Amino acid sequence: MQKLRFLTSGESHGKALIGVLEGIPSGLFLSTEDINKELKRRQMGYGRGGRMKIESDHADIISGVRWGKTIGSPISIIIENKDWENWQTGMSPDIEHEASISPVTRPRPGHADLPGILKYAHSDIRNILERSSARETAMRVALGAIAKKFLQNFGILINSYVIQIGSVKMGKSKCGIEHQEIDSYSKIADKSPVRCPDEQASKLIIELIDEAIKHGDTLGGIFEVIVTGIPPGLGSHIHWDRKLDGLLSQALMGIQAIKGVEIGAGFSMAEKKGSELMDEIYYDKENKFFFRKTNNAGGIEGGISNGMPIVIKAVMKPIPTLKKPLRSVDIITKEPFDAAYERSDTCAVPAASVIAEAVIALVIADAFLEKFSGDSIDETSRNYNSYMKYLKEF
Amino acid sequence: MQKLRFLTSGESHGKALIGVLEGIPSGLFLSTEDINKELKRRQMGYGRGGRMKIESDHADIISGVRWGKTIGSPISIIIENKDWENWQTGMSPDIEHEASISPVTRPRPGHADLPGILKYAHSDIRNILERSSARETAMRVALGAIAKKFLQNFGILINSYVIQIGSVKMGKSKCGIEHQEIDSYSKIADKSPVRCPDEQASKLIIELIDEAIKHGDTLGGIFEVIVTGIPPGLGSHIHWDRKLDGLLSQALMGIQAIKGVEIGAGFSMAEKKGSELMDEIYYDKENKFFFRKTNNAGGIEGGISNGMPIVIKAVMKPIPTLKKPLRSVDIITKEPFDAAYERSDTCAVPAASVIAEAVIALVIADAFLEKFSGDSIDETSRNYNSYMKYLKEF
Amino acid sequence: MQKLRFLTSGESHGKALIGVLEGIPSGLFLSTEDINKELKRRQMGYGRGGRMKIESDHADIISGVRWGKTIGSPISIIIENKDWENWQTGMSPDIEHEASISPVTRPRPGHADLPGILKYAHSDIRNILERSSARETAMRVALGAIAKKFLQNFGILINSYVIQIGSVKMGKSKCGIEHQEIDSYSKIADKSPVRCPDEQASKLIIELIDEAIKHGDTLGGIFEVIVTGIPPGLGSHIHWDRKLDGLLSQALMGIQAIKGVEIGAGFSMAEKKGSELMDEIYYDKENKFFFRKTNNAGGIEGGISNGMPIVIKAVMKPIPTLKKPLRSVDIITKEPFDAAYERSDTCAVPAASVIAEAVIALVIADAFLEKFSGDSIDETSRNYNSYMKYLKEF
Amino acid sequence: MQKLRFLTSGESHGKALIGVLEGIPSGLFLSTEDINKELKRRQMGYGRGGRMKIESDHADIISGVRWGKTIGSPISIIIENKDWENWQTGMSPDIEHEASISPVTRPRPGHADLPGILKYAHSDIRNILERSSARETAMRVALGAIAKKFLQNFGILINSYVIQIGSVKMGKSKCGIEHQEIDSYSKIADKSPVRCPDEQASKLIIELIDEAIKHGDTLGGIFEVIVTGIPPGLGSHIHWDRKLDGLLSQALMGIQAIKGVEIGAGFSMAEKKGSELMDEIYYDKENKFFFRKTNNAGGIEGGISNGMPIVIKAVMKPIPTLKKPLRSVDIITKEPFDAAYERSDTCAVPAASVIAEAVIALVIADAFLEKFSGDSIDETSRNYNSYMKYLKEF
Repeated sequence: MQKLRFLTSGESHGKALIGVLEGIPSGLFLSTEDINKELKRRQMGYGRGGRMKIESDHADIISGVRWGKTIGSPISIIIENKDWENWQTGMSPDIEHEASISPVTRPRPGHADLPGILKYAHSDIRNILERSSARETAMRVALGAIAKKFLQNFGILINSYVIQIGSVKMGKSKCGIEHQEIDSYSKIADKSPVRCPDEQASKLIIELIDEAIKHGDTLGGIFEVIVTGIPPGLGSHIHWDRKLDGLLSQALMGIQAIKGVEIGAGFSMAEKKGSELMDEIYYDKENKFFFRKTNNAGGIEGGISNGMPIVIKAVMKPIPTLKKPLRSVDIITKEPFDAAYERSDTCAVPAASVIAEAVIALVIADAFLEKFSGDSIDETSRNYNSYMKYLKEF
Repeated sequence: MQKLRFLTSGESHGKALIGVLEGIPSGLFLSTEDINKELKRRQMGYGRGGRMKIESDHADIISGVRWGKTIGSPISIIIENKDWENWQTGMSPDIEHEASISPVTRPRPGHADLPGILKYAHSDIRNILERSSARETAMRVALGAIAKKFLQNFGILINSYVIQIGSVKMGKSKCGIEHQEIDSYSKIADKSPVRCPDEQASKLIIELIDEAIKHGDTLGGIFEVIVTGIPPGLGSHIHWDRKLDGLLSQALMGIQAIKGVEIGAGFSMAEKKGSELMDEIYYDKENKFFFRKTNNAGGIEGGISNGMPIVIKAVMKPIPTLKKPLRSVDIITKEPFDAAYERSDTCAVPAASVIAEAVIALVIADAFLEKFSGDSIDETSRNYNSYMKYLKEF
Repeated sequence: MQKLRFLTSGESHGKALIGVLEGIPSGLFLSTEDINKELKRRQMGYGRGGRMKIESDHADIISGVRWGKTIGSPISIIIENKDWENWQTGMSPDIEHEASISPVTRPRPGHADLPGILKYAHSDIRNILERSSARETAMRVALGAIAKKFLQNFGILINSYVIQIGSVKMGKSKCGIEHQEIDSYSKIADKSPVRCPDEQASKLIIELIDEAIKHGDTLGGIFEVIVTGIPPGLGSHIHWDRKLDGLLSQALMGIQAIKGVEIGAGFSMAEKKGSELMDEIYYDKENKFFFRKTNNAGGIEGGISNGMPIVIKAVMKPIPTLKKPLRSVDIITKEPFDAAYERSDTCAVPAASVIAEAVIALVIADAFLEKFSGDSIDETSRNYNSYMKYLKEF
Repeated sequence: MQKLRFLTSGESHGKALIGVLEGIPSGLFLSTEDINKELKRRQMGYGRGGRMKIESDHADIISGVRWGKTIGSPISIIIENKDWENWQTGMSPDIEHEASISPVTRPRPGHADLPGILKYAHSDIRNILERSSARETAMRVALGAIAKKFLQNFGILINSYVIQIGSVKMGKSKCGIEHQEIDSYSKIADKSPVRCPDEQASKLIIELIDEAIKHGDTLGGIFEVIVTGIPPGLGSHIHWDRKLDGLLSQALMGIQAIKGVEIGAGFSMAEKKGSELMDEIYYDKENKFFFRKTNNAGGIEGGISNGMPIVIKAVMKPIPTLKKPLRSVDIITKEPFDAAYERSDTCAVPAASVIAEAVIALVIADAFLEKFSGDSIDETSRNYNSYMKYLKEF
């Protein structure tokens, strides 16, 4: 039986998003505020459209938490859609509202629209786009916030920042080694309207976004997520599907519009020689732990965390809904058309980095619980501490 | 209940590798030769060391196949290790052979060695490296060969080739659109000693490898896997862990030394605008199907296959075992040492591309069975054909 | 990837029960009423206490259904607790309400109370009993109603009735062979206040319950669930965890207070000889199908449905909360005490049989989808019909 | 990710049975002998036919164990079929041996034969019966032996004995409370030719079997498995599929010919009143633990182990292969026939009880690892001991 499981549900303009997370030990301090602050971070970012203001998401904890602490039973969360009153008939579960709004018959390239209706045999694309929409990620952020809170108990922090949007890249990050530096990077990122800790790059990105808005175009980019405080030994080499890097990749690639993932030095490793990339091993005799001075491996060797920060990057494609006319085919008439779409977001890379933190938190929390288990935070802590002590004595 | 499951086992110098694959429908034609030809492809490649010759892997089918056809029950495969007689005591399961060879106490950077012994509380690194070794991938290739054979029944082919090793990149591939071209690329790749279809690049890569051998260094690179003949509708947008791109990423990242994965235009999308990347939608009225003239999405939109070839790239880091001295720390004495390792392989990227085909075949076969199910090939075919007919009538 | 997944959540006196069911094909007609009528059946039954009246459960469909039909995305359901206003502080997620009601420190024998607090390290038993309560089964009934509706499309019906409560057993059922008879049994059962189709037994059971109420005691019993219209070929012999009987047993045993499960002739088979129990095989040449004249196997051979009705019985222990004083130990003081409990239900066997229908529907729907798959009801139907045609031609 | 996973494979007359068990911590002492002694217990029992002598199963450990201890990687086991040389062509994987023996076209009632060929679209029943045969359970016993060895480290023992065969029941067992008594029961059972600890019943059963042999008939029966030394807290009430009783039921019902399962007082609870069945709670102040003087619950409350022995019974139907003529229908001609079968076993209940120990060991080991985790036996022990200490201090 898997330790941590969750399911999310909800359509973009439905009544609410609902999520259930099962397997979190009892005794974890958890408040609505812990979740809402992450939902708020997800909604920030220069270049977002009007909806972000409509939303201002708020999570309600319906079960699994009592008097500020988890009790061990499944945690369920509701995030109501503020816009629901306008969609009560259009998205109603009741057959009496059938055909209360016109069907969407023009699939947008780059979305789930076309493969989705073919797979699910729909004639109204709304039945696909309502679920494929990135709106759904609000719930992943909410559940990820719980995972984050859990990991904080063990000094594990998950931070992110944008390193490239369009043609603008930040100056080379020296991150991934010094915890202190990462923290400060992330704090600066949280203050940047584009979540980029490089002030100069941040400014240029805003200019780029402004220009894209003007042309009705969109922009993608690259962000980096860094997990610090992680002990060696999460994940495993013994079977391919236990490898931590594989699990993290799936989680990141499972975010809307993500098209690539790399760990540590990633794709840049292709050009280098083995001798240039090795993270040589050192031992701190005083504090009794193994360490590295470089982190090309991005904190994972053989599918196992090695105690260095986990560093993982992902690329987000430009949002495929443009104001520029795009060619597509009506699914009913099979006639071509050129259409522009109403779309509020020009660039969602900053939001994607926050979503990435959440899904990574869920993977790491699961791996952590697989190693340390525990039905209460006290028990998990005992097991964790006993392992940390063993490491010192290794 | 999941449709397709498998477990692999076996140590690098153990008696044998063993794999069990469960869920393949009955009635699939399958011979030992189907498997062995893939094992042979895995062993080719310029820059491999001596062991590849020792191995010349041969698979035995122990169950699940009778008189040339699968019968529906779990298929088990054994690949004996040719070298076993030299390791009968060193890797014996019997306690009487304890300490018959010296323990390995010096962890190699870039391998599972150090995190592995910390996690599993070993004092002999051999207990880790024997399983973390890429030797294990022989079994994934064997099981993947079965998945490939299954997919061939439905016209789904999985090909690969190397596009970069070290600093040498092949001329820009125009692949991913024309099936014919992909086939020919792949056939040429199979004849290249480095699995690169570009003759000029192939030559330069061999020179690069020769030089790396001379310096005791190693090389990584990038390969591309292309899945053709795939119908629209595999994977799903409805839940993150059903997305086909996520599942493919996990499988690729789960191969030893892979540090990055990208789908379609991948990381290059960061720099481009939305308007440059759209795969506009067309409809062929005569043959009744939707298609695209470009494939930046790499065949997957919203986590669902869209009917275009699936194009996925991965980067392999240089093999981290070098003849050059590397700094590490003895796990017993905690003293540093500088050591060179005996290692036969200089570059394993060509082999990795063959392994990648196998793991991708397993993911696609599972997604295919999730959509079309069937307990016999006949039933799967009926269901598949009925869907293909529906698509024409959509 | 598993075809059908679900998670339930919610505490007995929490704000609401929440459930998410993922994997139901698109295009299934589904209304709130389909769910509510099953919730109502669950609440009936002579011998229930006051709460059943408070509850009068009502399900809201929050997602996955639009205009009366499923759309393929996860279906989420909320059942609000009518009594919530009285528990807003006692069961609040907010830390500010801490200690707003007294902790429960006296574990009841026969409940999860004692093992639960030991496992989850609680000092207030309410943190266990709120989730272990059978209140949670309302959500399983709601989700099971969806599975039932799905199965009805294929002529698969799931019925149940009580065959024993306390010392009163109904006259020997001749069920399990004639569909017609089962239907009528079930219809009569639905009208009996104790869901027993034998009028005489029904009357005696009511007397027994009245007597138990008088003495503050409780009663258990045995019920039978019968699945008709099921095609041969669900489940499989090839791996233990694919066996349909195993999956059904787990689902039934997972209902509160169920302590035994038997299929077909079940435990009575111990006493008989092989020659007395065989369901000999016949063939109807006109209608082209294999059949049996007896059904000792209960519709499953080798873990596979054989086309006969699936017949499965379960025993429910008497509800362990009595008005009679029982000995237990306070978890704080460790002092013994003799205490009577306020408890409204005297016998919940009729409700358990309805819950059993629901969990069996979920297992059968999953097995059905594993065999026939389909992302839309149309596709599932095509696959199903093609198999039924194949059976005729076998 | 699930902690413990396994797959088995192999046909009854194939070359070998193969199993892979993944997730056992490193450092567990394990020898071939640990496994073979369980295989031997499975083969004993009065009333078995000739094959049991042919078999004399022997397991080979192929991976996962080095120098007498597990190393954390997947453990694979081979049990060769002694009879293979007679079946080399009849069960060959090679197409060249096609049709080397005649197909089986007459399905036996009570076996997977008929539903199996319909499901998998075979015309030779051998393709089903080779896998549905109870021969496969040898591998479950082998893997279960590893689980048993693991559990022994924590004082958890799994014993069984036969309590009924045909019409003969042993005198009422007083088991389930006193560990000492269970041990002695089990030791006596191991010496009985029918695994029944009641000498008088044992004698009568042998007479019954002799009579059944004479008439070409077969016998079923009931056995009991008792798990002692289990701490409170395995399994969970929080979600139906985490309940330990459900998981145990599935495992038992997944054994060939098992048709019913009950926990503790089981079906006998239907007739009793709540007040007669309560296992009142006591506290031993000296040794600091909660206990009961009765065990009607069979060691599980609310799906969670409560620290009392787990007591679970199962019924095995008489083996459905008789020498008496039975009516069936030829699958090719559709003509009825009356046929007697060659069958060596008259009663396999003693063997089933040994198989039951194995599958229960696998479930308990998984639940144990879910609670205590650990990648090495040392780590699991630390976590377990820390919990046991916590229980004392509760």
